[in-house]
Amino acid sequence: MNKRNEHIVKSYDEELARLRGEILGMGELALEQMSGGMRALREGDGALAEEVIAADARIDKLELEVSGDVLRLLALRQPMAGDLRGVLSSLRIAADIERIGDYAANVAKRSLALSEAQPRAAVNGLSEMVEFASGMLREVLDAYAAGDAVRALDVRDRDVDLDARYNSLFRELLTYMMESPSVIGTCTHFLFIAKNIERIGDHVTNIAENIWFQAEGELPADERPKGDNTNIPLTP
Amino acid sequence: MNKRNEHIVKSYDEELARLRGEILGMGELALEQMSGGMRALREGDGALAEEVIAADARIDKLELEVSGDVLRLLALRQPMAGDLRGVLSSLRIAADIERIGDYAANVAKRSLALSEAQPRAAVNGLSEMVEFASGMLREVLDAYAAGDAVRALDVRDRDVDLDARYNSLFRELLTYMMESPSVIGTCTHFLFIAKNIERIGDHVTNIAENIWFQAEGELPADERPKGDNTNIPLTP
Repeated sequence: MNKRNEHIVKSYDEELARLRGEILGMGELALEQMSGGMRALREGDGALAEEVIAADARIDKLELEVSGDVLRLLALRQPMAGDLRGVLSSLRIAADIERIGDYAANVAKRSLALSEAQPRAAVNGLSEMVEFASGMLREVLDAYAAGDAVRALDVRDRDVDLDARYNSLFRELLTYMMESPSVIGTCTHFLFIAKNIERIGDHVTNIAENIWFQAEGELPADERPKGDNTNIPLTP
Repeated sequence: MNKRNEHIVKSYDEELARLRGEILGMGELALEQMSGGMRALREGDGALAEEVIAADARIDKLELEVSGDVLRLLALRQPMAGDLRGVLSSLRIAADIERIGDYAANVAKRSLALSEAQPRAAVNGLSEMVEFASGMLREVLDAYAAGDAVRALDVRDRDVDLDARYNSLFRELLTYMMESPSVIGTCTHFLFIAKNIERIGDHVTNIAENIWFQAEGELPADERPKGDNTNIPLTP
């Protein structure tokens, strides 16, 4: 390889590293938004909720930057095979993180609608779901940074546990609503918040599968585990 | 242009046309799934619900084919500027239609959980939402087939009306739940189904913006209209 090619290769790697950095930055921001949104809900902190809602635009902007970088990379560098997959997966991973950001902001938005975060047991259940989902996101970002496809699939397998937590909380919320019509409004918001967090787990799963795709060139062979069982008969 | 270049150009156009055809096929299937899912719910037709749930895999498969075609196109043809945008937008549009398919299948899945589709007024409200959202999807697919960016943005503007229908139905459902705890289970499913249809409108909006991006090279300047107002205080 002559000097000139070395230079081109290095510069291309730099651009890929930049893309990776942008995506990891998006992920960090999404993690902050998740904990911020949940704290705003738990503590009834309206100012924090407004901050979280406003900060969502930063994640959206980062996603646009990633898209722009991908377009530029494809146009100028015309990457092949593994590199091409890597670049396209980045686009998908950025889209998944952007959606996670939307769900986090929606938790903050819904918190503004509640006069008090009650019943407390349900709020604790939501907090635990957020912590569990944040752990999954943190882990999948680490797998992305390390390019570790096996670790990514390990994270995917944890989604069934998040779904199990969602199923339990869903049932718990229905019982509160049946016992006391006055909490129906609040618990409806809690149902949607729980669903948001369950969806965050699905997006982490997508990210994990894209890390695998990036490394292996195909989607993982085994079916992803499915764990949302709230579609069971509920009415007499 | 010599004979050889003409041949290459023609073949490239054919590949783009093929991509477009696959996406329109996905769209048609999604439309069928939306009406099938809603009919299964309205008529309590479990066999139809199962069909709709099974057919979702066909849309997923088509999305994978689109992704494969895009990868191949990028690798072999290395399109520039407008063509590159077109190819990348196709990827995004396919992802949006795939999600619409998921939401339609989820309506069918939830219909299986209901022993009867009551209260009837709420079911009618859901039917009207599905019809409205289907009209939006049909129109945005026509705009895509015609490459008509202005028409696409017209469809986007209709999303506020879908959101308004969602807001009304959301409130209506809460009143049924407060009046009669025995319908809380069913109405919770209806709340999620209404939210699914509202989300379908968001995905149609994304598709419209991608058609614009494909034609103009940038996202539409004006903010998309926001109309989900169900985050208003509901509790005393």
